[in-house]
Amino acid sequence: MGKRVAVVLAGCGVFDGSEIHEAAAALVHLSRGGAEVKIFAPNIEQKDVVNHLKGSPTEEKRNVLVESARLARGNIQDLAELKASEFDAVIFPGGFGVAKNLCSWATDGKNCTVNEHVNSTLQAFHSAKKPIGLCCISPVLAAKVFPGCEVTVGQDKNVDGRFPDAETASAIAELGCKHICKNVNESHVDKANKIVTTCAFMCKAPLHEIFDGIGTMVQEVLKLA
Amino acid sequence: MGKRVAVVLAGCGVFDGSEIHEAAAALVHLSRGGAEVKIFAPNIEQKDVVNHLKGSPTEEKRNVLVESARLARGNIQDLAELKASEFDAVIFPGGFGVAKNLCSWATDGKNCTVNEHVNSTLQAFHSAKKPIGLCCISPVLAAKVFPGCEVTVGQDKNVDGRFPDAETASAIAELGCKHICKNVNESHVDKANKIVTTCAFMCKAPLHEIFDGIGTMVQEVLKLA
Repeated sequence: MGKRVAVVLAGCGVFDGSEIHEAAAALVHLSRGGAEVKIFAPNIEQKDVVNHLKGSPTEEKRNVLVESARLARGNIQDLAELKASEFDAVIFPGGFGVAKNLCSWATDGKNCTVNEHVNSTLQAFHSAKKPIGLCCISPVLAAKVFPGCEVTVGQDKNVDGRFPDAETASAIAELGCKHICKNVNESHVDKANKIVTTCAFMCKAPLHEIFDGIGTMVQEVLKLA
Repeated sequence: MGKRVAVVLAGCGVFDGSEIHEAAAALVHLSRGGAEVKIFAPNIEQKDVVNHLKGSPTEEKRNVLVESARLARGNIQDLAELKASEFDAVIFPGGFGVAKNLCSWATDGKNCTVNEHVNSTLQAFHSAKKPIGLCCISPVLAAKVFPGCEVTVGQDKNVDGRFPDAETASAIAELGCKHICKNVNESHVDKANKIVTTCAFMCKAPLHEIFDGIGTMVQEVLKLA
């Protein structure tokens, strides 16, 4: 019997939704690990819609659940319906959509608010001692909701120019959490909180290294589940 | 020096664009193979925009290049600018967008027309004896443009209920091509035409098997390049 894993998405596209390659990688590794996966997203309007060709916001309106359904090939549910009791673990891929749609980190940093269903999902898995996997910018969700936890978003300095968003580590520390420096092919496991994190696209690295790093996160989550 | 590979997209989402997981898988395998990848898509309006949650078309208008940019993280060019002389190979992931935006297979079957830039791209790589990789429904592009070639879209019968679109194989045969039956973890190499195909999501299979099948396609393309 495979582990039952919920995957929570934030749209479809790095600049306004879930980072596509991170979500796809997590799903490949979960499939290989024999997990039974269900995919969820909040049924809310996106914070913005970015033209990914130009890199600039548009006047369009899109819905997080509807766009996330592209990544889920239509097989997705409203996050409000997620029952932690029906799953062994939950995974949040990254992408700016996490910082725009799942919480307000993109505009408010450590003073962000967290979407109520995202917050209740995180609290439910945590209090049931079920593992939570996060990558890229998603670890800020754990840092905000579980002060004192340990997470990684890569390095806390822009080592070799590969970690341009290294200041995220400082903001995490200011929230009372411990940032653990890790490379793109590694995960950090906070055993006390059962939180597993990896930096993914927070590091400028070849795509297959990001894919493998997400693999380590998924494998640790499945081990803890 | 890595092989230079062009990847041609058709939007972002299985029902109206490129199949996201196929495109992502191809890019992971190309990265692991050390390829230098550039991504292209035609700068045209999508045939339709499908709400992937409901599975039904909407009134929205979206552009194939702009939506494909989501998969490319913004790093994409108009297909009209692709010069085959600057690449060693080209790969077309699948998804309904291939049959809607790159050609009209979705409505016209074997009587379809092929987008002019898609057609000229295929012709240019073929006449330069550079390999062409295709998966899922994309092999119909080769079948239409290169009568007599060999391709696979999986099985020509709905074996174990895993190949619901098996009639695509008959249509390919009617175009004067040879359909080769293959499983999801295999590719077929048409050595004379340097065309490499794998069925991907034409087979109902676990995601990691589709991922691995696309890996065999990418590896064969890189070997031929």
